[in-house]
Amino acid sequence: MTFQEKLQRAQQLTRSCVCVGLDPVPGRLPQPFQGEQSVDGVRRFCEAIIQTTRSVACAYKPNLAFFESLGPDGLRVLADVVAAIPEDRIILADAKRGDIGNTAEMYARAFFETLSCDACTVTPYMGRDAVLPFLNYPGKAVFVLTRTSNPGAADFQDLVTDSKPLYLHVAEQASAWASDRPGTVGFVVGATDLDTLASMRRQFPDTPFLIPGVGAQGGDPVQVMQAVHAPQGLVLVNSSRKILYASSGSDFAEAAFYEADTLRKALNKKG
Amino acid sequence: MTFQEKLQRAQQLTRSCVCVGLDPVPGRLPQPFQGEQSVDGVRRFCEAIIQTTRSVACAYKPNLAFFESLGPDGLRVLADVVAAIPEDRIILADAKRGDIGNTAEMYARAFFETLSCDACTVTPYMGRDAVLPFLNYPGKAVFVLTRTSNPGAADFQDLVTDSKPLYLHVAEQASAWASDRPGTVGFVVGATDLDTLASMRRQFPDTPFLIPGVGAQGGDPVQVMQAVHAPQGLVLVNSSRKILYASSGSDFAEAAFYEADTLRKALNKKG
Repeated sequence: MTFQEKLQRAQQLTRSCVCVGLDPVPGRLPQPFQGEQSVDGVRRFCEAIIQTTRSVACAYKPNLAFFESLGPDGLRVLADVVAAIPEDRIILADAKRGDIGNTAEMYARAFFETLSCDACTVTPYMGRDAVLPFLNYPGKAVFVLTRTSNPGAADFQDLVTDSKPLYLHVAEQASAWASDRPGTVGFVVGATDLDTLASMRRQFPDTPFLIPGVGAQGGDPVQVMQAVHAPQGLVLVNSSRKILYASSGSDFAEAAFYEADTLRKALNKKG
Repeated sequence: MTFQEKLQRAQQLTRSCVCVGLDPVPGRLPQPFQGEQSVDGVRRFCEAIIQTTRSVACAYKPNLAFFESLGPDGLRVLADVVAAIPEDRIILADAKRGDIGNTAEMYARAFFETLSCDACTVTPYMGRDAVLPFLNYPGKAVFVLTRTSNPGAADFQDLVTDSKPLYLHVAEQASAWASDRPGTVGFVVGATDLDTLASMRRQFPDTPFLIPGVGAQGGDPVQVMQAVHAPQGLVLVNSSRKILYASSGSDFAEAAFYEADTLRKALNKKG
């Protein structure tokens, strides 16, 4: 099964293109987890979030930074959290790695074999050496950062060479590298710039987009889906903090479900 | 003590600007470590390399990919390895992270607080949000990828906007971000393009350079030092595989010392 087929099935099953970002911060865990050891609290919190949102989320995106910051136990917690995600959902390691050949191979092995993730994010600054090693895993995919949703994105991604911004050079090159391995490359394109999102979709109609920037960052889900108007298997819309921290009380799970389901419904609206 | 002062002292102490890159691959460990559990072998191998090279190396650069690929135990091994590095040497986490605000803060905490490293590498694609959080730690530094030494480096780093390649935009911006925190930003500049190295040094005479690409990648140490002709505290020349895997036999430690010391002497030659 290709990555895109697995994504399509997960989206059919859940009628959702919501990806829940797992960015657990020990100090922000809801009340029921306060007073626990950080690592236990993070593990149990993430497991509870997965349990409550699984019917309305097609994918989960653990952000590795938040697990690594827990120290050596963090990666063990990450492995437990990944194991709690249903097998028929997409698991996306948000790692934003970008390193050369033999190092990229190590990362690919860590994410796809050791952790059994379906996809991961990579940063393209170092060029093809940073991306190609991830394309050797059948059924897996890599999401290359193109135009991100953060304030500093414009610093370099919008620099224009030969009438094209850097992010478009990145997207074109990454597509070319994967030309003989269709479906193995996706793009990260932020929800905060709808014009860019729409023009990227016009130019890459068959490429899966991972779209951060709705929720806490302010992108509008209905407008996002109008910009990318995509059939199943081509769009993952991520929300992290707005779902995870929907309530700081003992009703955190219900509140997280409500936020995820509200996003799901907004994304499914015909604009 | 600033990062640069610590680097200067380490270089005076060892009369060396050699940085030993720690990229341990279980399958490539010398004969004495074969047949051990991977994690134990990697730990003992790295400790032996540090022990044998400490008199001729001012810095160690563990590459996180190689530890992460060992699974959850990998970060525990990394913590042990970091603890084996003498306190008066530089510890540089080669992580090439690049993520936005709150995630970058997590990484900064992981490397500078949890692991007690002196510096780390970052990739600049996401812009200022990916770099600024690392500049809030007195005595620590961040090395921003500018022009790297790998074959794919030219894919994007050499794209020219307003008569300047991307890597120069990155270097100028990163310097500007650190203008009120001198000494907290360094650049990664590959040894494989001597002209770029020399022109970068002319433009940034006071910025520490981390220079990969000698050793297995073929850059010539004498020519590198002619290109950067720098006083102490401004150059770290990294070699990884050529030192680590100098011999696959029981003489691996002597062979590693010989390679590191040979590189040290070549770098100290007046060209």
